[in-house]
Amino acid sequence: MAALLFISPQDASGVWPEALARAMPAIEVRVWPEAGDRADIEYAVVWKPPADSLRALPNLRAIFSLGAGVDYLFTNTELPEDVPLVRLIDPALTEGMTEYVLYHVLHYHRYMCEYQAQQRQRVWRELPQVRPGDRTIGIMGLGVIGGDAAAKLALLGFSVAGWSRSAKRLPQVRSFFGCDQLDAFLGRSEILACVLPLTPETEGILNKDTLAALPRGACVISAGRGGHMIEEDLLAALDSGHIAGATLDVFHSEPLPVEHPFWTHPKITVTPHVASITNPFTASTQVADNIRRIQQGEALIGVVDRQRRY
Amino acid sequence: MAALLFISPQDASGVWPEALARAMPAIEVRVWPEAGDRADIEYAVVWKPPADSLRALPNLRAIFSLGAGVDYLFTNTELPEDVPLVRLIDPALTEGMTEYVLYHVLHYHRYMCEYQAQQRQRVWRELPQVRPGDRTIGIMGLGVIGGDAAAKLALLGFSVAGWSRSAKRLPQVRSFFGCDQLDAFLGRSEILACVLPLTPETEGILNKDTLAALPRGACVISAGRGGHMIEEDLLAALDSGHIAGATLDVFHSEPLPVEHPFWTHPKITVTPHVASITNPFTASTQVADNIRRIQQGEALIGVVDRQRRY
Repeated sequence: MAALLFISPQDASGVWPEALARAMPAIEVRVWPEAGDRADIEYAVVWKPPADSLRALPNLRAIFSLGAGVDYLFTNTELPEDVPLVRLIDPALTEGMTEYVLYHVLHYHRYMCEYQAQQRQRVWRELPQVRPGDRTIGIMGLGVIGGDAAAKLALLGFSVAGWSRSAKRLPQVRSFFGCDQLDAFLGRSEILACVLPLTPETEGILNKDTLAALPRGACVISAGRGGHMIEEDLLAALDSGHIAGATLDVFHSEPLPVEHPFWTHPKITVTPHVASITNPFTASTQVADNIRRIQQGEALIGVVDRQRRY
Repeated sequence: MAALLFISPQDASGVWPEALARAMPAIEVRVWPEAGDRADIEYAVVWKPPADSLRALPNLRAIFSLGAGVDYLFTNTELPEDVPLVRLIDPALTEGMTEYVLYHVLHYHRYMCEYQAQQRQRVWRELPQVRPGDRTIGIMGLGVIGGDAAAKLALLGFSVAGWSRSAKRLPQVRSFFGCDQLDAFLGRSEILACVLPLTPETEGILNKDTLAALPRGACVISAGRGGHMIEEDLLAALDSGHIAGATLDVFHSEPLPVEHPFWTHPKITVTPHVASITNPFTASTQVADNIRRIQQGEALIGVVDRQRRY
C-alpha cells in the first residue's frame, strides 16, 4: 500500500490526517514525525516542513503544498531535486481570496473608513459615490487566484487591470505585464491588491518607488506574502498622505509582533493571515485527484516551475 | 416648448437643473418655486415635493421620482390622481445598492467586526472561514435592485434566497413569496438584507416576530426605508444576542438624531442614507428616455402601481 506523509508541525493535531484519509482511502496516511518505513512514502503533503522531514524518501513521487504559495519550500535545504512540487489549486481557496479582495476594494471604493469615523462622531454626511466604471482597480498577480478576483470585480462594473509576468487574456480585464509595464499599471490603480507569489523577482515589490507610482490617495491591499512589502516604505507613504489606506493580511514576521506599529496605525487594517484559509476537506480532494493523475499517468495540476518558483 | 418643473427643496441649488437640461435640450427646465405659467408644465421631476407644488398643473403628463422609492408621494395630499407616477430605474442606482449589500454581506460573512476588534486588542487569531455555498443570504425585495444584488451574491457562490410579493425567477436564487412563505424564508437567512419598497404592507416588517424568525446569530442589513424597522424591536433583539449585528442606512427620522442609541451601539453600523445615491446625470438620462417614450406613445418604464404603491 502506498503511503502519504503529512508534514506540518503547526497542524499535526488537527483534522488534516482525517481529511486526507477520507479523500484517498486506498492510501495510508502517516503524520510526521511518525514516518514508519521511509521507503513506503510516495507522497508528501506539506506546510513549512522541517528540512530533515524531506530527507531520505527514496520513493517520493510528489510534494504537495497545503497552500497556493510555495516560497517556503525554496528555503528548505533538503528539498529533493527531482520530485515534482505541486501548489494547491482549490476553488475554496480562490473563493476566499476573491471575497477578501472584493470586500476591501468595496471598503475603499465606498469610503467605509470615513463613514465609520463619522459614526463615531455622530456625523450624518453624504460622501461622493463614484461609479465602479470610474474606479480603477489594479490586481498584481493574474493567475488562478488573482484572475478570479479581477473577473468578479469586472462583473461588478469596476475598471480592472492586472499585472503579471506574462500577458493574460481575461474578459473586461486589461492586462499589463513585465517590468516595462509596471509603472503604467501602477499609475492607473486607485486601489491596488497584491496576490503575487513570492519569488526573488517579487520580493520587496511594494516599496517606496512602486508606492510612489500609484496615484495620490491610492489604497493598497496586500494579501500575497509579507515579503512583498517593504514595511517602512509603506509607513512613510501613509504618513506623507500619498497612500490613503492599507489592508494587510501578510507580514514579514507572523504572528505580527504585538509591538509592531501596524496594529495601531489609523490607516492600516490588519488581519491575521486569513484572507483565504486552506480548507482541509476541499484541499484533500484536490490532492487525491492529483495522486490519481500520477497513478494513471496524467499531467499534474499545479506543478511548480522551479525556475519561476511558482 | 414643453416645460419640466424640478421640485426638490433640498436639491434646488445643485446640479439637477443642469443635468436635466443637458439630457433633454428640447424641454425648458424650470425650478420650483419659479414655475412660470403653470399651463406649460408637462413633466414634474420630484423629490419630497411640498403639497402645493403639485397643485394646478393642468397639462401635467407624468411625475418622475428622483428615487426608486415613491412612498413619500402617497403622503402628498395634492397628488394628482390621473397622472402616471414613475419611479427611477437607473443602472447607477442599482450598482450602488448592490455594492452596499455585497460589502455588508461580506463584512458579516467574513467576521470583519471580530477581526477589527482583534486588531484593537492586537490579537492574532484565525476565525472560521465558511464557504459561501454554506452561507445563507436572504434578500427582501427581488425587483430591479434586490434582484441584481441577489444575482451578484449567487455569482460569488452564496446560497441566496429572495422574498417578494409574487414569485420571481432568477438563476441560482430561491424565490419565496407572500406572507405564507415569509417565516420559511427568514428561518434560513443567516444574513438578511431588506431593500423592499415602503408600502402599507411592508411598514414595520422588520419587527420582533420577523427578527425572532431569523436563525440565532443572524445579521440584518436595512437599506430600503426606515419605516420597515421597528427600532426598539431591533435593539431588544441585539441586546438579547438573538441578532448579532445590524447595518442600517435608513431610519424613521433622518438625519438620525444625535441622541439616538443607534449611533453608539456596538453591534450597529450606521450610514447616512447613502447605500445608493441618485446620480443626477444618469438619472436625467432615464427621465429623458421616458419623456421620449411619452412623446412617441410608447410605454413608460417604471410606472408605479398606485394600488401596490411601488
